Amino acid sequence: MRSLPLALTALLATASITPAAADTLIDNANGLQVTANGQLQRFTGVLIGNDGRVIRLYAKGEVRPKNVAYRLDAKGRAMLPGLIDAHGHVIGLGLAALDLDLTGTRSLAELQNRLRAYAAATTTPRWIRGRGWNQELWADKRFPTTADLDAAVSDRPVWLERVDGHAAVGNSLALREAGITAKTKAPAGGRIENGMFVDAARELVEKHIPPTQPKQLDRALLKAQEIMLSQGLTAAADMGTTAEDWNTMRRLGDSGRLQVRVLSYALGVDNLVSIAGPAPTQWLYDGKLKMGGVKLYADGALGSRGAYLKAPYSDMPSTRGLPLLDDAKLKNLASRAAMDGFQVAVHAIGDAANAQVIGAIEELAATYKGDRRWRIEHAQVLDPADIPRLAKTGIIASMQPTHQTSDRTMAEARLGEARLAGAYAWQTIVRSGARMALGSDFPVESPNPFPGLSAAISRQGLDGQPPGGWRPQDRLTLEQALAGFTRDAAYAGFAEDRIGSLDPGHYADFIFVDRDIETASAAEVARMQVLETWVAGKRVYQRPASAPATPAHER
Amino acid sequence: MRSLPLALTALLATASITPAAADTLIDNANGLQVTANGQLQRFTGVLIGNDGRVIRLYAKGEVRPKNVAYRLDAKGRAMLPGLIDAHGHVIGLGLAALDLDLTGTRSLAELQNRLRAYAAATTTPRWIRGRGWNQELWADKRFPTTADLDAAVSDRPVWLERVDGHAAVGNSLALREAGITAKTKAPAGGRIENGMFVDAARELVEKHIPPTQPKQLDRALLKAQEIMLSQGLTAAADMGTTAEDWNTMRRLGDSGRLQVRVLSYALGVDNLVSIAGPAPTQWLYDGKLKMGGVKLYADGALGSRGAYLKAPYSDMPSTRGLPLLDDAKLKNLASRAAMDGFQVAVHAIGDAANAQVIGAIEELAATYKGDRRWRIEHAQVLDPADIPRLAKTGIIASMQPTHQTSDRTMAEARLGEARLAGAYAWQTIVRSGARMALGSDFPVESPNPFPGLSAAISRQGLDGQPPGGWRPQDRLTLEQALAGFTRDAAYAGFAEDRIGSLDPGHYADFIFVDRDIETASAAEVARMQVLETWVAGKRVYQRPASAPATPAHER
Repeated sequence: MRSLPLALTALLATASITPAAADTLIDNANGLQVTANGQLQRFTGVLIGNDGRVIRLYAKGEVRPKNVAYRLDAKGRAMLPGLIDAHGHVIGLGLAALDLDLTGTRSLAELQNRLRAYAAATTTPRWIRGRGWNQELWADKRFPTTADLDAAVSDRPVWLERVDGHAAVGNSLALREAGITAKTKAPAGGRIENGMFVDAARELVEKHIPPTQPKQLDRALLKAQEIMLSQGLTAAADMGTTAEDWNTMRRLGDSGRLQVRVLSYALGVDNLVSIAGPAPTQWLYDGKLKMGGVKLYADGALGSRGAYLKAPYSDMPSTRGLPLLDDAKLKNLASRAAMDGFQVAVHAIGDAANAQVIGAIEELAATYKGDRRWRIEHAQVLDPADIPRLAKTGIIASMQPTHQTSDRTMAEARLGEARLAGAYAWQTIVRSGARMALGSDFPVESPNPFPGLSAAISRQGLDGQPPGGWRPQDRLTLEQALAGFTRDAAYAGFAEDRIGSLDPGHYADFIFVDRDIETASAAEVARMQVLETWVAGKRVYQRPASAPATPAHER
Repeated sequence: MRSLPLALTALLATASITPAAADTLIDNANGLQVTANGQLQRFTGVLIGNDGRVIRLYAKGEVRPKNVAYRLDAKGRAMLPGLIDAHGHVIGLGLAALDLDLTGTRSLAELQNRLRAYAAATTTPRWIRGRGWNQELWADKRFPTTADLDAAVSDRPVWLERVDGHAAVGNSLALREAGITAKTKAPAGGRIENGMFVDAARELVEKHIPPTQPKQLDRALLKAQEIMLSQGLTAAADMGTTAEDWNTMRRLGDSGRLQVRVLSYALGVDNLVSIAGPAPTQWLYDGKLKMGGVKLYADGALGSRGAYLKAPYSDMPSTRGLPLLDDAKLKNLASRAAMDGFQVAVHAIGDAANAQVIGAIEELAATYKGDRRWRIEHAQVLDPADIPRLAKTGIIASMQPTHQTSDRTMAEARLGEARLAGAYAWQTIVRSGARMALGSDFPVESPNPFPGLSAAISRQGLDGQPPGGWRPQDRLTLEQALAGFTRDAAYAGFAEDRIGSLDPGHYADFIFVDRDIETASAAEVARMQVLETWVAGKRVYQRPASAPATPAHER
């Protein structure tokens, strides 16, 4: 042991006889993936090399190799490539999950009990944050007050958001630390009512909440990873990585704890330039992390009427939203990234913002040639006249099916019937020849990709509404939807050479699920369960025997 | 080749016969190192494992192993462990080296010629910065003007600092981009004279110089590494790593280009917490990079009278300098780092600053027990009454011998005779029982450790002044000096388990030099040349056959 590390010596003991003996064969699976030309492909066996990559797939009846080190009988279970979320916020997912979850509390007493239990179980950070309460579900429908919170926890600051995110209530210590007194006035756009801080008034308290410490960021990333793997996501594009986020990802990578693959897009050009420097980073940690591009924002969101529209909002004719960048600034930032070979992904929700971004990219594409894979994130509301410009310029539409099911009635109110033709127009965009990638925008929506796949093929929510699907002409086929969460999401991240399918040479990232997606109804797809998740040929998640039958997104 | 990476397969071909066959024997060397108990140790052979670590040293006459893959006959050349600078600014060294070097120009025409040649050879960054001119060396002793610079380069901004760093001159484009006009007034503490910007006036232009881009930072780190390796430094403590610096080091590490070992101390607690997070980082890139602590500043420097003294400056009785942190703030910052197991290194030059830092550490050491290795950087002027407190509190004095030789006359003026007893008091500090580590504070001084070793044993500058050495009672022995640049510098960085000596298990980091340091005079030590530098058993620098006989620091 003087000159060879132990692991290598151990490897020699097996590997030196015959390399193939280290291979793993997964056999008797009910495997399904989408091929490069968009067809469903069935397979029943996967041979995985010692490097965690697929050597080959076997169709039913094809002869299997004899000399493999490990054989796993999948016992006919349904198998899919690891799913990829093309647009999420990885550490945001974990931070939200570490907060107190008050979703579905049936009474003030239940809120208080959950708060007490959380305080006892979770000693850091000192500030307790929670969200999800809805007094409409309580018998007396009374809003919780500062005194109600004090009765449960008074020795640590507590701050609890309502389910809609518009209002929050704090305990006395939280208000004291924020310097709130009876004389505090709410700012414009906010209200304070009996200890309840509404809209812009929330900031009076929230700006006093201490910044998240790295220990909590580390926990958050581990938590996000746990959630992702349990829901079948083996990779995600992180859309807006801050310096703190990046350092957290590196800490976990450095210590060998990063199991999911993160395709990082820096939050803005300054972070991009500081972190990645003169070019996209390497693939780090054996394909677990790479910063390949920048995330920019062209506008806000539809719900808050921040999305930038060509014509006034139907439900508020005084505004059409606002662009966040003028044309010159948008082109300068995108150009700064593109000149060094970085990918550019721009958030655009409203039709005017989408037109602005498409126009900017049309100009830039004349200068920055080659395989650029310009991305529009959300591409939520497009003027139908602009849709053909996507394919012409090689712009990928990165869309989130569950936004459609969540936003449906709000979007109808904001946009009016006439503008819906270009809203969440998945099939229209695909038919126009543009590439599409699918995701969830977690934690804004659940990271669970199965409700996303279900919405993609049905245009119905988890409640089955509306019957027949909302504007069903824009449904995707199962092939399209599955490609959107696998092969096309990989392509959108310049990663199709390694993830998104189980083609030879790709990482053996795959999941076993509880049913065959091809024979499932949309409602059944939404409720599919992940039994096991494998990354690079290693099992990293197994569903506990005691796991509840209801999927995580409904718990 | 389906299941084993190529490199591993290649390795199997050799290694599977017998592991020892991959070992390397360096034989017939004239090796010297300092043992753990401070003695000089002679050796003539080093057996290096395939992992780049020393298996064992061989004394003259000891039997060598027969089955080794590689044998190198050192032909009697002098060999030392790789030298370690306990206090440097790695990227700062590279940035300074990439700028135009005007040291020693003999005329304005020579300055103009060098400027023209540099502009032709160096296209980025667009701003040309240079330093080192001294009109006192020119026949007419006339200061260079804006017009003089324009005559050489007018299409890029040019900004050239005088050798003393107090004055700089810009060309017309630089002044135009900085918004300087004939009406511009110098701020307090500065002057503008015929296009020459003195002291505080420099900032009028310098704040308009664009921030350094990551491409240049990458180049700077590569350049610093090249300089370090060519001068025999295989490792350095980076005293004040910014987020940009860290990302640069990671980029080079990620792409396999980091060859020197960097022991990083974050510039301030915010950088520390953001980068390393909840604990010191791993040793990254096989021992090339680790962030283990924080650098804080208690005061400024002696030259600018920023050092904080117990009594007024002898040459300006109106001031005693200023502390940069009050006691509470210093203890809070140090505590924030120490509570998560980080090492604390505090810059302290003046005797009042040193007393303040010692006092703060005495308090903190009562809370944060165990092996803490508190460091004072520079420890330049101590009240002799405070010196015994170092050892009692386990404080390491991190000192720079060449500061003494550079500062000697200035220190005499600033401090007066009475205070010199505790100034640069190396031997006094060592005799008090405190640990010491040595460095250069590059690029403030040359990174070349041989002038440092020479100053340490002689208290004389490269000019041999003063005869007999300045306050020679504080000379170090060769054993002490060499330990300061090897074993003790490693200890000061919590790295003595892997670098600082060629003991078994340590990285095979070593250098061949052009003479035996034990038999060399101080003047000869200062001029010693590095012939080869090896890191982890691989040669990473070899002196070009055409290298000039004068050492780099004099070129």
